[in-house]
Amino acid sequence: MEKIKKITQNISGIDSIITQRTQEKLDSLTKPLGSLGRLEELAKQICGITGKENPDLSHKVIFTLAGDHGVTEEGISAYPKEVTAQMVYNFLKQGAGINVLSKHVGARVVVVDIGVCSDLKVHPRLIIKKINYGTKNMAKGPAMTKEEAMRSILTGIEIFEEELNHGIDIAGTGEMGIGNTTAASAITACFTKKPVEEVTGKGAGLDDKKLKNKIDVIKKSLAVNKPDPCDPIDVLAKIGGFEIGGLTGIILAAASNKVPVVIDGFISGAAALIAFHIAPKVKNYMIAAHQSVENGHKAILDHMGLKPLFDLDLRLGEGTGAALGIGLADAAIKILTQMATFKSAKVSEIKK
Amino acid sequence: MEKIKKITQNISGIDSIITQRTQEKLDSLTKPLGSLGRLEELAKQICGITGKENPDLSHKVIFTLAGDHGVTEEGISAYPKEVTAQMVYNFLKQGAGINVLSKHVGARVVVVDIGVCSDLKVHPRLIIKKINYGTKNMAKGPAMTKEEAMRSILTGIEIFEEELNHGIDIAGTGEMGIGNTTAASAITACFTKKPVEEVTGKGAGLDDKKLKNKIDVIKKSLAVNKPDPCDPIDVLAKIGGFEIGGLTGIILAAASNKVPVVIDGFISGAAALIAFHIAPKVKNYMIAAHQSVENGHKAILDHMGLKPLFDLDLRLGEGTGAALGIGLADAAIKILTQMATFKSAKVSEIKK
Repeated sequence: MEKIKKITQNISGIDSIITQRTQEKLDSLTKPLGSLGRLEELAKQICGITGKENPDLSHKVIFTLAGDHGVTEEGISAYPKEVTAQMVYNFLKQGAGINVLSKHVGARVVVVDIGVCSDLKVHPRLIIKKINYGTKNMAKGPAMTKEEAMRSILTGIEIFEEELNHGIDIAGTGEMGIGNTTAASAITACFTKKPVEEVTGKGAGLDDKKLKNKIDVIKKSLAVNKPDPCDPIDVLAKIGGFEIGGLTGIILAAASNKVPVVIDGFISGAAALIAFHIAPKVKNYMIAAHQSVENGHKAILDHMGLKPLFDLDLRLGEGTGAALGIGLADAAIKILTQMATFKSAKVSEIKK
Repeated sequence: MEKIKKITQNISGIDSIITQRTQEKLDSLTKPLGSLGRLEELAKQICGITGKENPDLSHKVIFTLAGDHGVTEEGISAYPKEVTAQMVYNFLKQGAGINVLSKHVGARVVVVDIGVCSDLKVHPRLIIKKINYGTKNMAKGPAMTKEEAMRSILTGIEIFEEELNHGIDIAGTGEMGIGNTTAASAITACFTKKPVEEVTGKGAGLDDKKLKNKIDVIKKSLAVNKPDPCDPIDVLAKIGGFEIGGLTGIILAAASNKVPVVIDGFISGAAALIAFHIAPKVKNYMIAAHQSVENGHKAILDHMGLKPLFDLDLRLGEGTGAALGIGLADAAIKILTQMATFKSAKVSEIKK
């Protein structure tokens, strides 16, 4: 807990002087004032976070953490749990959606086994930091111990800090874990106090009958475990997942290192929610990529007061939405740093 | 008119067999069915338009057409009209928003003087196809003659076809013209029959008093000219602009050549509206990039039944929204062509 405390103490507000200077710079560029809307807001936020007037976003990193969920034995997922491990191999062979979209925006993907329920083959691009072989079935008791919950957050911090040696100018969150929308819905219901029905969706493709079962399983998990929303570690331990805890750590570490972090969709949102309840100021460092199709995601964003950049009906996870969000952040910083000013381009300003 | 007729006769529905095959391909990729939402729809539309199962979008072209507007003498713009020419020079020096965002997505920008009110200096990257030195003041009579209106459309077709020799896999529309939101609002009111107040915004930065004047000027222009919405050339001639007519031609030429065309914001939307009223099937070839801040834009998109890809509060024009839209189209096609299938990656499919 000491390390987590130390990291969170480092998280401060963003640099308002730099933000102000960025606004002035944006207003000097050859475009009507404010006409690039949210791209301008993004540029300001990134400058404020990094403390740099001309930030460089060359090093883009997406962290895709994989973990399994014991609750799959309740029949809450459309896919068999073996798919978690199979998809990790797919990430390593560059065949998944996240590989294609990361390459598209020039980001590298860091793939981590933080809790897959089988032993994965060694691969030069696979980081193995397994907390355990999947979580336990949260419908019957806590998904993990408190010690495992803390260790999953610390592992996320560690992964981020190790990768920082290779350079991280902007980070994105991603995950893979059959069953993890069930955990994310439970976490969302716990923190936002919304009815389970309102924050539970069809995940990777349930039918109506199985959705009903998923809702019942989440209700049972909440009733059995009674997670305490005032104790985020308790919530993570009882109804979370290893990849969710890992992403919480990555988000906290990004903020503590003044690195903007693009939050993907629903599962990443649940990790962000835990980070937010540990250290509310972490919100300043978050960029919400998109509005997911999963019902609970809007409740998460509203709870933290984040506005997503786009709404493309995505619900894949892996970090795919974060990749597209990183592409927009890149565009925003290029606008700031590459456009001509009214003065340099000899363009007349607005009539007074 | 013969050439325009010939072009529009070439515009057909999109290839439904290819669309179906694209759906099957998308469903075989390692992701839950439909989980990439609008990216999947985009991929299908582009395959259907091009008739190719694996389209290549290497050649991305944004057409940025510049023209002046006589109606500026009514005080409807926040910027002096000299800015049109100044911004053309800025485009040529790569200093504008469109240059930065086009470079970001790997598109080339084709800059055309189709009606700037001064003689521009010759530049190797400037195409000069001037119809006239700006339009006339539409508050006092037609903005241009019917012959000029037709010629502006034909010029757009010609620009597209000349550029096609260098390769165009996907096109985007863009414009520059001080005063052109006034023309676009008038066109929108004429075709959608919405009140002028509802489809008129602050353009590049009017205050409330000047917005009131702009609305009055548009009402006067409609009353003086009585454009006939059943005759799109009449509308273009009386209350349009040369860059708007040129973009209408580019959109028609793209559709006729089976090239997807990404429509930027409000002014490009007005050009798309004219193209749609000339040849309704052109809609199949259009991709609406974004929802502009300008009030009238939503009315345009609703009228044609187009749903924008994103809403980032943009209102710059030039083709900046189209550039970002082209980036998403590129991502969509990469998903289609670069992802692994369940079979190739040995990933288990959904449980039956």
